[in-house]
Amino acid sequence: MRFDIITVLPGLLEGPFSHSILKRAQSKGLAEIFIHNLRDYSDNKHKSVDDYPYGGGSGMVMTIQPFANCIDMLKAERIYDEVVFMTPDGEQFKQDTANELSGYKNMIILCGHYKGIDQRIRDVYVSREISIGDYVVSGGELPAAILVDSVVRIIPGVLSDETSALSDSFQGGLLDGPVYTRPAEWEGHKVPDILLSGNQAAIENWRYEQSVIRTKERRPDLLDS
Amino acid sequence: MRFDIITVLPGLLEGPFSHSILKRAQSKGLAEIFIHNLRDYSDNKHKSVDDYPYGGGSGMVMTIQPFANCIDMLKAERIYDEVVFMTPDGEQFKQDTANELSGYKNMIILCGHYKGIDQRIRDVYVSREISIGDYVVSGGELPAAILVDSVVRIIPGVLSDETSALSDSFQGGLLDGPVYTRPAEWEGHKVPDILLSGNQAAIENWRYEQSVIRTKERRPDLLDS
Repeated sequence: MRFDIITVLPGLLEGPFSHSILKRAQSKGLAEIFIHNLRDYSDNKHKSVDDYPYGGGSGMVMTIQPFANCIDMLKAERIYDEVVFMTPDGEQFKQDTANELSGYKNMIILCGHYKGIDQRIRDVYVSREISIGDYVVSGGELPAAILVDSVVRIIPGVLSDETSALSDSFQGGLLDGPVYTRPAEWEGHKVPDILLSGNQAAIENWRYEQSVIRTKERRPDLLDS
Repeated sequence: MRFDIITVLPGLLEGPFSHSILKRAQSKGLAEIFIHNLRDYSDNKHKSVDDYPYGGGSGMVMTIQPFANCIDMLKAERIYDEVVFMTPDGEQFKQDTANELSGYKNMIILCGHYKGIDQRIRDVYVSREISIGDYVVSGGELPAAILVDSVVRIIPGVLSDETSALSDSFQGGLLDGPVYTRPAEWEGHKVPDILLSGNQAAIENWRYEQSVIRTKERRPDLLDS
């Protein structure tokens, strides 16, 4: 799976994409991640990528031209399943969205910055607008990294143990229950006896119950849907 | 405001915290961000920070000792308002949460990795569990970066133009409307006439209407609450 990410802050994304799961997925050839510096596509002699908003007001707005040039170049090279814009007013990103996107082949992700991007880029170029949550961050870079991470880790072969991703929170519609490791007792706090029992059927049953209890306590809305 | 982030992947966070708003906030002295490598706090001669889960199953579980040592050391140095654990089963992070946390002075953030962290760390040390959304990512690092970014950018003085943050999506309970910049016409796509009218009252009115329309279309649930 190939991701082309267009950003004014390529350096911000270097860390997230060169560690852990994302690094492993790339070295296994299961994911390719290309980061494009938006400024390289600016026709402007100052390489500017933003301008004042029409109608006044605070903040700068990202201009059409650099995004258009970069997207046009990429689309001339291959077919993309989707051109995604990360924005807080987009569709709410859920585990199901990650599952769906993990079946794609090529995806472009636009990262906005400043006050936003010219609406006409969204109208003409963007096929899907995605929000990672009901809050505002400085730009689309971290949200793009979140999206790519959550999608890549469920591509078959990326995690060393595939059942690990399948037992995560949300995959079964439930939150994950508590987990414990050694020592069995730490400053008076003990691991639940059942986990030391060796009775695997009883342990699985307990884990399911714990998932249900935690979901009821913390996110009853997940049980309604 | 001071953030102490405890992670096994400090390199992952270098990019996000050395660019843009977070860089500016630190250079202005409005935010201090310290990244602690969890392995440095492991008493184990192999500097290991995880172990097999009790009861079997896939994935590794992060052990208590390194987190406990690091948190104890930090708490001996100053008072913390909150010890936050980033986890998909935590309370849902919203713009209101960011507003609330921006009033804090010192915060510790624990980043989990692998299958999770020993439940006893959560029971004994963690005062607040926060989720950035209903999806799973490889670790708590990117979620921690999202949290810090959204909190820091609303600390007074961080953004050059404070009204910019106040007019963001969610701050008034509405999504932001469309924005436009030059050129006024691009490949047949024009900027709405009203924005070129110079009638500031009419423009503000139009912007409010657009916010309401977009919120009704995309997130009617925000209008109910």
